[in-house]
Amino acid sequence: MKIGVIGSGIVGQTIAGKLVELGHAVKVGTSDTSKLEEWLSKAGEEASVGSFAEAAAFGEIVFNCTRGAGSLDALQLIGEANLNGKILVDISNPLDFSKGMPPTLTVCNTDSLGEQIQRTFPEAKVVKTLNTVNAALMVNPALVPGDHTLFVSGNDPEAKATVIAILKEGFGWKAVLDLGDISTARATEMLMPLWIRLWGTLQTPMFNYKLVIGE
Amino acid sequence: MKIGVIGSGIVGQTIAGKLVELGHAVKVGTSDTSKLEEWLSKAGEEASVGSFAEAAAFGEIVFNCTRGAGSLDALQLIGEANLNGKILVDISNPLDFSKGMPPTLTVCNTDSLGEQIQRTFPEAKVVKTLNTVNAALMVNPALVPGDHTLFVSGNDPEAKATVIAILKEGFGWKAVLDLGDISTARATEMLMPLWIRLWGTLQTPMFNYKLVIGE
Repeated sequence: MKIGVIGSGIVGQTIAGKLVELGHAVKVGTSDTSKLEEWLSKAGEEASVGSFAEAAAFGEIVFNCTRGAGSLDALQLIGEANLNGKILVDISNPLDFSKGMPPTLTVCNTDSLGEQIQRTFPEAKVVKTLNTVNAALMVNPALVPGDHTLFVSGNDPEAKATVIAILKEGFGWKAVLDLGDISTARATEMLMPLWIRLWGTLQTPMFNYKLVIGE
Repeated sequence: MKIGVIGSGIVGQTIAGKLVELGHAVKVGTSDTSKLEEWLSKAGEEASVGSFAEAAAFGEIVFNCTRGAGSLDALQLIGEANLNGKILVDISNPLDFSKGMPPTLTVCNTDSLGEQIQRTFPEAKVVKTLNTVNAALMVNPALVPGDHTLFVSGNDPEAKATVIAILKEGFGWKAVLDLGDISTARATEMLMPLWIRLWGTLQTPMFNYKLVIGE
């Protein structure tokens, strides 16, 4: 499959690298191609680099791996023509680091970044997922023992099924839970404050939550 | 130990009943004593009922089991003289049901109800905990299998140690994690949107999260 990955940070590089490893053709979109020279030299023949718009145009599926505070701007640069009808996997979290640590959220409670993106691009099929775990864990859940849980939110059942197949068969996730429509992205984005506190308390970002259910 | 429990709903009745069972003397504070007649008839000799202020005055430790949207008002009725110097275990969540389902939070992101209570009663030792699980699970964590996780937040290390001892030795919690000062109550109160969505998805409130940590 041809996949566009928007964002050249650690999340974008990690996701794109894994997708190439899985046999997909991947174009990573960046505003600074020099950031990806080293990545590209190691990523294999099916990897390429371009602008945000070129990466989105290339992909049948597009992964948003930009920082949440800049995601809407980055996606606006791409334009809806390059996103309409496509699955847009949104991994971003709306973290605001401008007021010091710990970061707060730019949007929460009555709205979410996932919903903002879906409203801005109504013809895209936004699927929110992977935003609750560290980048390395996203593509290698076995770094944490047991069948810990990954959440998925989105309005389009077929789009969610396609993404869940990549998560399970590609990335190795065993416990993937469909929370419901894109408004459930509020719930997972609002996990960030706990994630950040746990990172501080545990002194490692390699953790996740396993949902355990009683009788 | 003498314990005051503020609130006569299902959380207050459950917590108070368990504390009596553990051998404590417990006075439950309510604005409507008729709600507690049945409870009192079954709760044993060490159980009693009074006003909010009487229950707080009675307790060496006070549990806030009121609904979050009314917690500050209820505690104001009690007055700081009945809370100063005491451990105030805050179990409430700032849920706002007035705008329909799912409820939103009355405060989050840059503040929390736990912090509001601590600021309003600076001489009380507020410990936020138990607010992430169903009432039955609070006092019987074995209803969900495995060592799932309970979080504790608060500024006073001794107060937290006392509460953690009740949680572990009294209520049976095995995995209790001290997240840090009372500002970490933001993180656990902001778990509510996920809890509510999971309740809908799983069709049961009997679940919890087990924190799993990698290498």
